[in-house]
Amino acid sequence: MRQTKSGDKHSPYSYTGLHRVIHERARLSVLTSLSVHPKGLRFGDLKQLSGLTDGNLSRHLQVLVTSKLVEITKTFEDNRPQTFCKLTALGRKRYAEYVLVLERVVKDAAAAVKAPAPKRGSSPA
Amino acid sequence: MRQTKSGDKHSPYSYTGLHRVIHERARLSVLTSLSVHPKGLRFGDLKQLSGLTDGNLSRHLQVLVTSKLVEITKTFEDNRPQTFCKLTALGRKRYAEYVLVLERVVKDAAAAVKAPAPKRGSSPA
Repeated sequence: MRQTKSGDKHSPYSYTGLHRVIHERARLSVLTSLSVHPKGLRFGDLKQLSGLTDGNLSRHLQVLVTSKLVEITKTFEDNRPQTFCKLTALGRKRYAEYVLVLERVVKDAAAAVKAPAPKRGSSPA
Repeated sequence: MRQTKSGDKHSPYSYTGLHRVIHERARLSVLTSLSVHPKGLRFGDLKQLSGLTDGNLSRHLQVLVTSKLVEITKTFEDNRPQTFCKLTALGRKRYAEYVLVLERVVKDAAAAVKAPAPKRGSSPA
């Protein structure tokens, strides 16, 4: 058999749209948190919502900023520095595209649930 | 602020149920393919459906077998050896649990889409 290319036509379950930058669980948490809060979130609130530690959140934010999906601004509130995180327009677009693929996975999985489970000891088809 | 634990109650977007073994894109492809084909699949067909190369599929199958989510049997068809892959009962259960979390992500994302995008140049909330 020839090497399979990961085209969707012949490989319906390849899900090539699940890009690693967004698909990684911690980053998916961060992006969803920011997506639900389009005005942006303070670092501390984002940390709380995504359930990450300071170090993990910082590390993943760095990846997201490098990929231009998130922008970070330093502000002052009551004379205290605040780190403020927000989705970029590109981030919003990429996240929406990613979720479309996720919806396909859920749909495919739902179709699978309808397929009957095989009987015990049944032989290969 | 104290270290945040990744409990769902206070961290609604932590998605702790997205276990790495299943969440990795290639393995998600493999598990969905096998889920849609409950009687199991030949290695070549699984390779086709998931859009993976021989080496990648072998590597990821090894992880799934070690985690007891997939079982592999060697059969003979027309005197030729065949590698046959199938979800275990545990694999079916874990995959279903995983998909429930995935559905939550999609639902959260859908709620986010309804939230209006911020105006350009708007200041932090």
